[in-house]
This record gives sequence, structure tokens and C-alpha cells, in this order.
Amino acid sequence: MIKVGIVGGTGYTGVELLRLLAAHPQVALQVITSRADAGTKVSQMFPSLRGYVDLPFTHPDEAKLEQCDLVFFATPNGIAMQQVRALLDAGVKVIDLAADFRIKDISEWEKWYGMTHACPDLVAEAVYGLPEVNRAQVKQARLVANPGCYPTAVQLGFIPLLEAGVIEPGSLIADAKSGVSGAGRKAEIPTLFSEASDNFKAYGVAGHRHLPEIRQGLGCVTGHPVGLTFVPHLTPMIRGIHATLYGRLTRDVDLQALFEQRYANEPFVDVMPAGSHPETRSVRGANRCRIAVHRPQGGDTVVVLSVIDNLVKGAAGQAVQNMNIMFCLPESTALDNVPLLP
Amino acid sequence: MIKVGIVGGTGYTGVELLRLLAAHPQVALQVITSRADAGTKVSQMFPSLRGYVDLPFTHPDEAKLEQCDLVFFATPNGIAMQQVRALLDAGVKVIDLAADFRIKDISEWEKWYGMTHACPDLVAEAVYGLPEVNRAQVKQARLVANPGCYPTAVQLGFIPLLEAGVIEPGSLIADAKSGVSGAGRKAEIPTLFSEASDNFKAYGVAGHRHLPEIRQGLGCVTGHPVGLTFVPHLTPMIRGIHATLYGRLTRDVDLQALFEQRYANEPFVDVMPAGSHPETRSVRGANRCRIAVHRPQGGDTVVVLSVIDNLVKGAAGQAVQNMNIMFCLPESTALDNVPLLP
Amino acid sequence: MIKVGIVGGTGYTGVELLRLLAAHPQVALQVITSRADAGTKVSQMFPSLRGYVDLPFTHPDEAKLEQCDLVFFATPNGIAMQQVRALLDAGVKVIDLAADFRIKDISEWEKWYGMTHACPDLVAEAVYGLPEVNRAQVKQARLVANPGCYPTAVQLGFIPLLEAGVIEPGSLIADAKSGVSGAGRKAEIPTLFSEASDNFKAYGVAGHRHLPEIRQGLGCVTGHPVGLTFVPHLTPMIRGIHATLYGRLTRDVDLQALFEQRYANEPFVDVMPAGSHPETRSVRGANRCRIAVHRPQGGDTVVVLSVIDNLVKGAAGQAVQNMNIMFCLPESTALDNVPLLP
Amino acid sequence: MIKVGIVGGTGYTGVELLRLLAAHPQVALQVITSRADAGTKVSQMFPSLRGYVDLPFTHPDEAKLEQCDLVFFATPNGIAMQQVRALLDAGVKVIDLAADFRIKDISEWEKWYGMTHACPDLVAEAVYGLPEVNRAQVKQARLVANPGCYPTAVQLGFIPLLEAGVIEPGSLIADAKSGVSGAGRKAEIPTLFSEASDNFKAYGVAGHRHLPEIRQGLGCVTGHPVGLTFVPHLTPMIRGIHATLYGRLTRDVDLQALFEQRYANEPFVDVMPAGSHPETRSVRGANRCRIAVHRPQGGDTVVVLSVIDNLVKGAAGQAVQNMNIMFCLPESTALDNVPLLP
Repeated sequence: MIKVGIVGGTGYTGVELLRLLAAHPQVALQVITSRADAGTKVSQMFPSLRGYVDLPFTHPDEAKLEQCDLVFFATPNGIAMQQVRALLDAGVKVIDLAADFRIKDISEWEKWYGMTHACPDLVAEAVYGLPEVNRAQVKQARLVANPGCYPTAVQLGFIPLLEAGVIEPGSLIADAKSGVSGAGRKAEIPTLFSEASDNFKAYGVAGHRHLPEIRQGLGCVTGHPVGLTFVPHLTPMIRGIHATLYGRLTRDVDLQALFEQRYANEPFVDVMPAGSHPETRSVRGANRCRIAVHRPQGGDTVVVLSVIDNLVKGAAGQAVQNMNIMFCLPESTALDNVPLLP
Repeated sequence: MIKVGIVGGTGYTGVELLRLLAAHPQVALQVITSRADAGTKVSQMFPSLRGYVDLPFTHPDEAKLEQCDLVFFATPNGIAMQQVRALLDAGVKVIDLAADFRIKDISEWEKWYGMTHACPDLVAEAVYGLPEVNRAQVKQARLVANPGCYPTAVQLGFIPLLEAGVIEPGSLIADAKSGVSGAGRKAEIPTLFSEASDNFKAYGVAGHRHLPEIRQGLGCVTGHPVGLTFVPHLTPMIRGIHATLYGRLTRDVDLQALFEQRYANEPFVDVMPAGSHPETRSVRGANRCRIAVHRPQGGDTVVVLSVIDNLVKGAAGQAVQNMNIMFCLPESTALDNVPLLP
Repeated sequence: MIKVGIVGGTGYTGVELLRLLAAHPQVALQVITSRADAGTKVSQMFPSLRGYVDLPFTHPDEAKLEQCDLVFFATPNGIAMQQVRALLDAGVKVIDLAADFRIKDISEWEKWYGMTHACPDLVAEAVYGLPEVNRAQVKQARLVANPGCYPTAVQLGFIPLLEAGVIEPGSLIADAKSGVSGAGRKAEIPTLFSEASDNFKAYGVAGHRHLPEIRQGLGCVTGHPVGLTFVPHLTPMIRGIHATLYGRLTRDVDLQALFEQRYANEPFVDVMPAGSHPETRSVRGANRCRIAVHRPQGGDTVVVLSVIDNLVKGAAGQAVQNMNIMFCLPESTALDNVPLLP
Repeated sequence: MIKVGIVGGTGYTGVELLRLLAAHPQVALQVITSRADAGTKVSQMFPSLRGYVDLPFTHPDEAKLEQCDLVFFATPNGIAMQQVRALLDAGVKVIDLAADFRIKDISEWEKWYGMTHACPDLVAEAVYGLPEVNRAQVKQARLVANPGCYPTAVQLGFIPLLEAGVIEPGSLIADAKSGVSGAGRKAEIPTLFSEASDNFKAYGVAGHRHLPEIRQGLGCVTGHPVGLTFVPHLTPMIRGIHATLYGRLTRDVDLQALFEQRYANEPFVDVMPAGSHPETRSVRGANRCRIAVHRPQGGDTVVVLSVIDNLVKGAAGQAVQNMNIMFCLPESTALDNVPLLP
């Protein structure tokens, strides 16, 4: 059994981690911390967990995180970087679901996140946990930076095209739409039901923190910087990301075959039949990315449709996938549930 | 392995049965029929099942249902009664998720359902599949009438009070609210998104088909007819039923203890702590009923709040629960998933 | 032109008041205050008002409220009672959309609202602004207590029955469902989209502040205290209240005629044809209450269905209706817009 | 008073026309037809119109349409072209809200709509009713082709850029998101609440009927064909279109000033302040297009955000705007209501 701890379990990625780990046959959940809610039973805050999780939230200071085999950070940005070194030194592996270790360029990170980074050396060591690209490195990692939700959907959609070199890398467009849970479980007016329901809007057009992360990931694939316009939108649903990706084809290619071959052995990427329009609900609650590729009217613009559940393949599910890889378990362990439709 | 067939698998109870059975370690799904969609792959209609269900829909006439150990009917009312006898004669057990075998009084059934019943003798034999009341009979049954969604939520809420004889049985009120999936996957204007979203309404106040079913079930508990006003409402969510039940207390009693004792050994009924307000999302996707009991201002009106997922404990999940009981499997097999929240 | 001021305009009742007043031909909006957002243009916070309202929010201290003819308070409870006396002394009429002047029994008010009342004498003077009951008094009033949203829907539904004395006044049940905007524009977790969407729950079963208000109003009608069980619920829609009301008939009566006669001359109460199920969307954005009355299966339980838009007839619209009455304008001025459906 | 008839009033554009016309001081609604619902009162089908519209639906054959001054067609595609000539010959003006007269190239129309056109000569005569481009021609027209919903949002967003010649006309991208009412009031499974709610998907990527309409409109502006990739999406809200438009800048320009100048005198186009993200709810129920223009990270991609209410500026409201122009009324008559927010 893997002894697991969770730091910061009161947000949506936290409760989703708990949902998945509760069904994991090789995991023994030891401790879950929350500064604000220490003492409260987890199942009191989240009645969906009644009968599955009996633990209370523990104050971080009293938590015996160092006795765990693995600690997940489901904290706001800037927390994990304060605490990771001690854990690593104690031999604990770490998966950070926040952004602290995602961006290799420290000054870029500090610009977008508005903080001084506490441990640049660990950033250098951290493995970016997108298994479809970095599986081998994840297997060896002590510290995994779990990708953001938008970056997961966008990268998985562009990667086959960029690896094959069939689109212009300088004029990529990612028009992405997210359900409201992507904004987290925070008391804020713009994500109130009465504000976000029956409404649609773009946000962060001038610049969103996931932009440098996506650029970095795609740049690794092509070997040089890419040009990307990234426009995120808020759509009135709880879960799900739909990325609509546009690229300019540089040569003729069998796009369907390209995608099918790239992901032939990937357990969590499903290339849909030609002509498909994947729906976000087809992955609701599941650690899966469904992708369809189109070339409208046979023109030189390729359109990729990529959907994930932002809380699963876009966060907690991918984290469990990374854990399974790090601990040499079958990659699908506890990740094989059927999506909830309708 | 139990060889299982499904008749009529294109509705919401059908796809939900498939979701649950796909994860059932003792079930081998043999055949799923649909007159209208024969030849289509199940996973083409429901992409959520890609990778889990490989079968196509089969024309009923060609389906080898008689070689199954168990057949589920997820058909419209009036279909199962035409086909059940042949299956039973062939030694196949049957669970009907429609209403054909729920009402013992044939003339009452015929009045509410507007059809002549095809096999009254089998109605007499059929066991009403509410395990919390009829577990022993379900175990022995060849033919189970799976309860309706409203009747499940309402009966589980009233039963402790009626069994204990602490409320007037002649003036029960059930104010019930259902998500839209309760209306089924049928092309009809009133359940369009643009009609049902951002809207709330009652319906069927003059009389709803679940009224005689609830009356019968509660009458069995008290031993004589009950008086019930039942008002169903449509609420803009996909899944879930919330029943708010009102009864007049006839004597003082520890209501919390009464409920906790009644359901102490029930794996799928969760009596919430005193003062709770169960939310439908706390059972989303799970075979569970959560109940809270209140006595506002210490008056003589008791208020019970009872929530289920209409497609799980209110339909497909309860059907799998009944199957587990009929085949002597642990009752929770394939029914132990954590609810999806948020 | 009536010179109008609004105190506290950043909530949903505030923006709704602005929407209605912007179209009012006899109103000159002078000032709108907000302590937190002074200096911000109203139309910057609410872009729907671009082109209609040019004012900025003003700091309350600088606001020239005393030069207005009428001031609306769209503030949290407990604010209006601090400021009303000075305005009345200056000859300004006041309509309070909060609860400060709704409950005549000061100790009852203090118990439910947890504050010491600042001006009990003004409570005695204030007129409860339900025009269908108190039109004549509203016409003479200096200070109007605008009714709560639930109380409006519930009282309008029960009044014909209680006035006619055809139901037991001691065992009334009001099962009410509200859209989320009823909770106000406040940054709180339970009303986040990801919490309230695709979900249904009761709340405040032990006691809700609208209970004493409803009891008081119905008690005025009957002349003695009524017994009422009131259970509010939260339903995933923005606007709308649906009250389902239950009473026990004491004698036979033509219920449809009773309701039609009671509201024959009421411009904003619409008694639907027998057998109807009014939908909340049928009053979306409109100052209207639609009511249907049922007697299921001819039994002795009467069921009334009453719907309003909580922000209009349940708040800002009723306030404008009261203003029209107080200033001897046609009661429908600026209140005659067609509901928005779909 | 303008005598007005409506052909086909049971869809969403029909009921929306009725909502707007009911408040129009210069309109006398004479007749509204529906083959399927002849004899039914309009307000029985749409209770929101109780008290505003007293007419029944009339059978088309019996309708005295030729005595009207103006007839709106709110019919499915292919109906208006059968009936318009007789009306025009009788001196009646016509506004078609369907697509029969939108595309000048008959063979292109026939390809996309799968029908033979009944009156190509009238297509030549018809004026495309986008007042921001064709106001003068609308004023003189007998027959107006009211634009589609997507084409309105997309054209208004691209026009300033194309007129000024500051973007490449060959690589335009329109990523558009529509509320579900855009699919009409038709009994179909994909637009059921349980299918469309809590879900997001693209559709028609291979080709959508609004593509040739947009191409034609933009081609008129530039004087030669444009290259356009158009991807529509379905988002879980009732009303609203959000078009996110991408173009490649060919030279430096003050984008904000460009848009503000272009629409300075347009009553129904609102250019938002620099940096804005218009929300669909900010135009809910109103005949308004709000636009913001961005140049992310100062690159060479311009991003335009354009929102409308698909049923108002995208259909019925624009039709009333065209009527006002054709009959020399102030253009805003009956179109000046404040959007409904929240």
C-alpha cells in the first residue's frame, strides 16, 4: 500500500482526488490538511464522501506528511514551493497540482505568478507530468509538476501536428472553453450561479497564466518557440474543457491517421472517428481526452477539437495517473470508471 | 459469470445500466436490443461508453435473450408484459425497469396506464423490488418489478414513520422535485433545454402514475390504505430527485433515532445527522438515498428530506442491486462508486 | 418628475430597480449610493445598463438623498433603520426593500434578525407594501416596508382561501422553491455556480426569516394566528419563486371562482385557467404573480401553485408598484413589460 | 398604425417577435398563422403573453395576410419563397426571418439548403437587412432578408477591420458559441435539457449554412471573396451568441478608435472600453451587439469579441429594427428595453 497525504484538500481538485483515491486499491490515505478547516471531518464538508473518507482535516503543522510515500499538493499557487524540499529530503515523492513547478524559466514564472520563487533548483529537477509526452521521466521522478487543465487539452490537441511538422508553428490559435469549476472553490462574485449561469464570456484575453505553460510545452515538441494566441472562455457548466484549435497546414497529410498513430498506445487519449464532434459530457468524471481532427472544406486550416474533464484529466485524474506511473502500478488503476452521461 | 441481456437500451435508464454493468465483475453482457437502432454500435450513440461496451444494438427478434441468465427491460411501459412469459418459461430471470408489474391491482394499473394488461398472473407473482422492504422476496424472485424513481424516494422517507405508527396515515403530503432526465430520452418540446432550463414548474397535480404505486407501497407498510397528496415538479437539473415529505405527528418520538435504527443495516440508505439538508448532488451517480428528518419549531408536523439519483437508486442502480440479491452476490457489487461532486 | 435616490445599489435588487426605473417616464434618478464602490460608474459594474444609467455610485455621506422625493433602500438588513428618520423628517418618502420594517412585533424581529431595532416607532408607522392587501394604506404612507420574495408568493396564494375561511388556518404548508438570485449578490461558496448548478436542496427547515413575516401577513387576514410549516428550497435557476401551498378544506367551494373573484381587479395577479401549472419563466422579468388552484382527486387537500419573479414582484417591481401608488401614478407605469420567454 | 401579420408564430423567433411587437406603439397585430396550431390561442401556448396578445393562431389559408401593411415570416426555410410574391403583388411589404432570400447566388443557396429556389428574381430584389451596412437600401425595400444570428454577430465584428483593410481577408477565423434557443423550438433529442445541459460541443465543423451567408456579407465589404473558417458551438444557455473572431493584422492601427468611429452613430452597436470582455447576458433580451477588440501581447493577431442575443439582434429584434426603418419610424421604437441582468 502506498501511504498518501494531501495538502490542501478543501478545493475542487482536493475533493476530486479524494473521490479517485477512495477507490484506489493500493492507496492508504494517511492525512489531509487544511489550515482553515482543521478538525472538520472531510465528509462533513463533502457529504458525497460519507462512507468513503473518515478522516478529519488536519492542521498542516501537525500533519505527519514525512511518513507518507507520496504527498499531493492541492493548494493555491505558491504553497508547495515552501514545503516540498523538506518532504523530498525525507524521501517522500511529491506531485504538485498547482503551478509552482510547471514553468522552467524562473523569471517567466515570477512575472506571470507575481511571486519570487522559493526553490529554482527544484524547478529544474521537476518533471512536467504529461504522461503522453514525458512518461519515462515521470517514472523516475521525485517531484512532478501536474499540468494545468487548459494546457492538457491544448497540448494533446496540437502535439501530433507539431511533432509531424505539418502546421506553421508561429500562428497557432487555441480558443478554449472551460466549465466554472476551473475557477476553483472560492467565494467570488463572478463565479456565482447568478453571474455565470445562462451566460458566456471570454476572459484573460490580454494574457492568461496557462499561456506560458502551453508555449513551453509546445516549444519542447518543436524544438523552438511557437506563436500562440490563447483565448479562454467561461461556459455555464460545472466540469469540462473544450479546446478548439486552429493551425495552418504546410503540407497535405492524412490527419486522421496521424492522430490515431500518435495516440495508438495511449490509454487515456481517444481519437474519435473522422467527422466527430466530441462533447465534454462524454468524459465527465473520467480521466480521458477525446480528440477529433477536421479540415473544413478541404482548406489549409486544420481544426482540432479536444475535450477533457478539467478536474480529472485536467487535474486530479492526471495526478493519480502520474502516481501510478511513479509507483509502477498499472496506469489505469482507479482511473477506469465510465464517464457519467447524461 | 451472469449472462445478461438488456431489452431497449437507448434511453437514459439503458445507458445507465450499461455504465454500471460495464464495471460489474460478475456480469457478461450478451445482448442489447433496440428496434429502431439495430446495427448501430452502442458506443456510437453514447460515446461515454467507448472502450467499455463494444456491442451493437440488436433487433429484438434476432436477440438470443433466452440464453441469458437475466434480462433487464429498460423499455417503455407495456413492452415487458408482452415478452416476459417466454423468458421466464425458458428459465431466465427478469427485472423490469418499467411499470408493467408494479401495481398489484390490475384495474388500477389499467386505469393509470391506459392499456389492457397482458399477463395479470405474472403481476401477482412479481416482487416489488424495493430491497429495504422486500429483500427476502427479491432473493427468491423470478420476476422483479423495479420501483419508480419518485416511489423510491418517497417510500424510503415515509416508511420509518409509518412502520412506527407515529404519523397520521390519512394526510400525507409528498412534494417531489425531479431532474429532467426523469422524463426520459424522448424528443419532446417541454423537456428541451430552452423550455426546461432556468424554469420551475409543477406537473401532473391532478394525478401522476406514481401516485398509485406509492399508495400501494405505503399501504403495505401500514396494512390499510393511506391518504396521500403527491405533487411532482420539474427542476432544471439533469439528475436527482428531492422529495420533501410532510406528515402530522400523533405522538412524541425521537425521530432521529427512529430513522437511524430503521436503516442501520441498509447499505444504500444514509440517515444524515440531525439538522441536515441533503443535496441531490451528494448522491449524483451513486446508488444511495440520503435522508434527513426535521420537526420545525417543535410543532406537530414532521418534515422528511429524501434525495436519490433518479437514474441510479431510482432506476438502474436499484435494478443492479436487485440482481445482486437475486444472484446471491454481495449487494454492493458494482454499486460502490463515490458520488460525483461537484 | 419624481426625484429618486437609491441607497445600496450594487446588489440584484439594486440593479433590477435601475432596470425598471430607467424606463419610468416620471422618474428622474438623482443619486445611487454604495460605500464600497463609490466613484465607479454604475454601468461599469452592470454593462447591461450602458446607455441607460450614466450615474456613478456615490459615497452615502455625500449623497444628497434629502433632496429626493423618494428614496429606495436596497441595502442589507439593519441599514435602513439607521437612516430613515432623517429622510422622513426632511419630507422624503421611503421604500425599504430590506426587512427592517416588515415585522410589527419588535421582539420577534429582533429574535429573527439578531439586532436591536433602531426605531420601533417607525415600525409601527410603516405600511406593509403588499398592494393586493394594503393598497389604500400604501397610498397614504410615508414609509413602506416592501415585502419579502417568499412572503409575496405565499401570501398571494393563501389569501383567497383564508379570507373565505375555507381552509383550516392551523395546518398550512408552504413548500417554496427559489432561484439563486434570491440569495443576493454576495461572494459565498454555497451559491457558486459549481455548488448550486445541477443540484437541489432544502435549507432553513428549522426556521427562516420569512416565516414570521408570512405568519404575520396571514394572521392579519384571518384575525388570529395561523399555523404554518414553511420549507424553502434552492433550485438551479437565476430568477423565480414557485410556491406550492397545501391547505385542508373545511367545506366545499368553487375554488377557481374564489380565486378569480378575489383577483379580478388586480393588475399584477393572474389566475390561470383551471388545471394549469404556472411556470416561473412565464413571469421572468415581469411584475406579475400567476396562480393556479387544484384539488387533487377531489380530496380535502387544496393545492395552490403561485409563481413570481423574486426580483420583480418579489422585490424591485413591487417597490416600483408601491411608488406608483404613493405618487398617484397609474399603477402599471414602467411595469408593463412582457415576460422574457424563452 | 402599421397592420402587421406573422406567418408561423410558434417558434422562438415567433414568440420573440410577439413580445417586441406587443410593446410597439405603432403596430396593430392583425393575424398570426400556424398550420399545426390553428385555433389555439397564442397565450395558451405562451403564457408569458397572457394579457398582451389575445389572438388565436389562424390557418394560413384563411389568414387575411394581404390586408396587412407588413408580413413577417417566422417560418422554417423554404416556406416564405412560396408565398412572398402574392403578398408583394398585393402591396404588402415582407421581412423574412428565415434564409430564403439571404444568399444571392442561387446555386450556392440550393446547395446548402437542399431545395430548388422558387423565385430567384425576388432573391435579386431582396435587401439583406443588416442596417449597419444596408440602412439606405432597407429604407426602400419591399422585401428584406433578415440576417441569421451567427452572421449578425460575426459580420459586425469583422466589418470595421475589413473596411479599413487592416487584416488579411484570406485567413479569417470565427469561433462562435450559441445558446440552445438558436436550434429552434423543435422536438429533437440533441437539444433536450438532459443532452445539452452541463455540456459543450462544436457542431457543423465540416460546413454550416451560415458560412456562405457570412462569406457573402464580408465579400461585399472587401469587394472580393474572403477566406473564412467558421466553427459553431453549442453552449448550455438559452439565449446569446458569443463570436470570438481572429484576424491577422497587416499593419499597425488604433483598433479601439477604428471600432468606435465605425459604430459611432449606430444605436444598436456598443463598442466596449479597451480591455473589455462582453458577456452575453449584458444583451439578454435586448437588440444590441456589444463588441470589444483586443491585440493579445501586442502580436499580429487581432481578437474581436462580439455578443448578441440570438433571438433579438440575431432575429426578431433586427426584424423590428428593419420594419422601423422601412416605415420611417424612429429606429429604436419598441427596441429600447434594458437587458435583463441577472
